[in-house]
Amino acid sequence: MKIAVLGTGPVGQNLASRLAEVGHVVTMGTRDPDATMARTDDDGSATYAAWQKEHPDVRLETFDEAARQADLVVNASGGDVALAVLDQAGGANLAGKVLVDVSNPLDHSQGFPPGLFVKDTDSLAEQIQRAHPDARVVKTLNTMNNDVMVRPEALGASTTVFLSGDDVEAKAIVTGLLESFGHDDVLDLGELSTARGAEMFLPLWIRLRLALGTNAFNIKVVRGPGTVDRADAG
Amino acid sequence: MKIAVLGTGPVGQNLASRLAEVGHVVTMGTRDPDATMARTDDDGSATYAAWQKEHPDVRLETFDEAARQADLVVNASGGDVALAVLDQAGGANLAGKVLVDVSNPLDHSQGFPPGLFVKDTDSLAEQIQRAHPDARVVKTLNTMNNDVMVRPEALGASTTVFLSGDDVEAKAIVTGLLESFGHDDVLDLGELSTARGAEMFLPLWIRLRLALGTNAFNIKVVRGPGTVDRADAG
Repeated sequence: MKIAVLGTGPVGQNLASRLAEVGHVVTMGTRDPDATMARTDDDGSATYAAWQKEHPDVRLETFDEAARQADLVVNASGGDVALAVLDQAGGANLAGKVLVDVSNPLDHSQGFPPGLFVKDTDSLAEQIQRAHPDARVVKTLNTMNNDVMVRPEALGASTTVFLSGDDVEAKAIVTGLLESFGHDDVLDLGELSTARGAEMFLPLWIRLRLALGTNAFNIKVVRGPGTVDRADAG
Repeated sequence: MKIAVLGTGPVGQNLASRLAEVGHVVTMGTRDPDATMARTDDDGSATYAAWQKEHPDVRLETFDEAARQADLVVNASGGDVALAVLDQAGGANLAGKVLVDVSNPLDHSQGFPPGLFVKDTDSLAEQIQRAHPDARVVKTLNTMNNDVMVRPEALGASTTVFLSGDDVEAKAIVTGLLESFGHDDVLDLGELSTARGAEMFLPLWIRLRLALGTNAFNIKVVRGPGTVDRADAG
């Protein structure tokens, strides 16, 4: 599949390299490719360019061009810029396509730990869907660190990844991608509004990261004996 | 230990009977004991009185009297009435005592699924602590169904229960209670403000209940190899 990963930070890099590894043609999207290539760390070392050199199979384009070429689009930008990024990607380039949103609506304005800028009665996933009604939005992977997203088996035990979306076929396509990463417990929460639950998990995830002193964890939903997941709770 | 369980609904009943079973002297607290004993279901059958008959070892008192006699107090009332219940229990009866809060700040005013009436920058646990500064508040058990609270081993695999609180000794006492119920993975999130994370898990719990069609589940925090929990993240 031709996949666009929007966002060139650690989440985007991990998703892009793993998607390429499992056989997809991956293009990363950024606002200004030249500026992204010139980006440096505080110590002056190249950040994206060094990663790009190690991943010559992944191309870098503008948000618009990356989305235009793709069959499926992944929003790996920060939650606070997700709507602006997808606006730059262009509604026409997203129409009819599966749009995987892995971001979290983190509000850093009040210091650490961050809160959520949308919650409870709405979600970032729903905001994205409303902004792009013809995209087939699926929320997933936002409840874990990006290393765990792409190599869950490194934790040494089965853990759970959630899905929320209104398009059952889109969720089936995303389930295939998740399984190709090694996820063996994809739990379909139901319609897209269930992303409210998955996004509101983040405040607990942040406290767990602090308590455990690592990002290398995930949750497993342990079902009691005899429990059978509903095929589609939506 | 002499333990008061405030709240006579299913959560209170399950906690009270299990606490009595593991050897504690348990008194349940209610606003009006006579009214509670007279309470009937829609079909006219006794609710609390029937349970009380099967548990003669558990006494029923007013909130105030139950809390006065106790060494440790459990708030098992609904989150929406928790502050009022604890006010009736009386600040003087809570001072210096471990106060275990298992409630959730569910807001049912907008229909189903409920939202949370406090979140993100505050928690019900902190509201309780501010209202009763001399109580030793510990938040726990609110992330699972009440059957799972008291018999976690029925799920057939280890699952995680969280602790939040500012009093390290109080958390050690509560850890002992949790272990006596069968909990084998008590994860100390740190100071009481971490209850914001544990309470904000509820919206995901509600979607999981709908997707799984059962209350018989809990989450396990799966740590990667080599991860050692910090003794006290607070």
